[in-house]
Amino acid sequence: MYQKKIPVSLDCGLHLFMEVVNGKWKANLIWSIYSGIKRPGELQRKLPNASRRVLDTQLKQLIDHGILYKITFDELPFKVEYELTVLGKSLIPAIMYVAQWGEDHRAELENLIKT
Amino acid sequence: MYQKKIPVSLDCGLHLFMEVVNGKWKANLIWSIYSGIKRPGELQRKLPNASRRVLDTQLKQLIDHGILYKITFDELPFKVEYELTVLGKSLIPAIMYVAQWGEDHRAELENLIKT
Repeated sequence: MYQKKIPVSLDCGLHLFMEVVNGKWKANLIWSIYSGIKRPGELQRKLPNASRRVLDTQLKQLIDHGILYKITFDELPFKVEYELTVLGKSLIPAIMYVAQWGEDHRAELENLIKT
Repeated sequence: MYQKKIPVSLDCGLHLFMEVVNGKWKANLIWSIYSGIKRPGELQRKLPNASRRVLDTQLKQLIDHGILYKITFDELPFKVEYELTVLGKSLIPAIMYVAQWGEDHRAELENLIKT
């Protein structure tokens, strides 16, 4: 059970989580890469509403924050993949948890977000 | 345990969660209100890096998304408070979960985010 008074340290923890995942597509990128969609073109097709430029920027920020790393294969045609770091993998249960919240309240939320 | 293949429904749940909390201060606003900081001026003091205008916009979006409601007290001086709805309260365990992730990886994240 959670308590009414939130310790300062968790306040800071929330800030750190939001620093990492805040950004329109970041959680989706992490989730997609986790589920095996690892190449830039595949990610773009998975998230067609995002521009390639925005995706590239968010991927770079996720690399800078230690969540992803980029693998460039030394072959032709030129091939790039993104992979989760150990820290990135540790985010997956948290993302699953919040996604389950969204799923549990899906009907209500879809109604509220549309209107 | 989570599985490697993520069901489509959870993909949607993640999108719904992000729709609700994406926004620089939203998770902090929800958390602050939950911890008893309910008046606009108090929220502004709690989050001094946010402008009042941005906070007002994000509070309004959280109301539109069914997370908060606003109470206007019929007295002088004029008094307003925000309160979590039932849906908003259901977000607290999810926010606690992700905040714990941030706290568990605090040293690593503070280092990465600074640089």
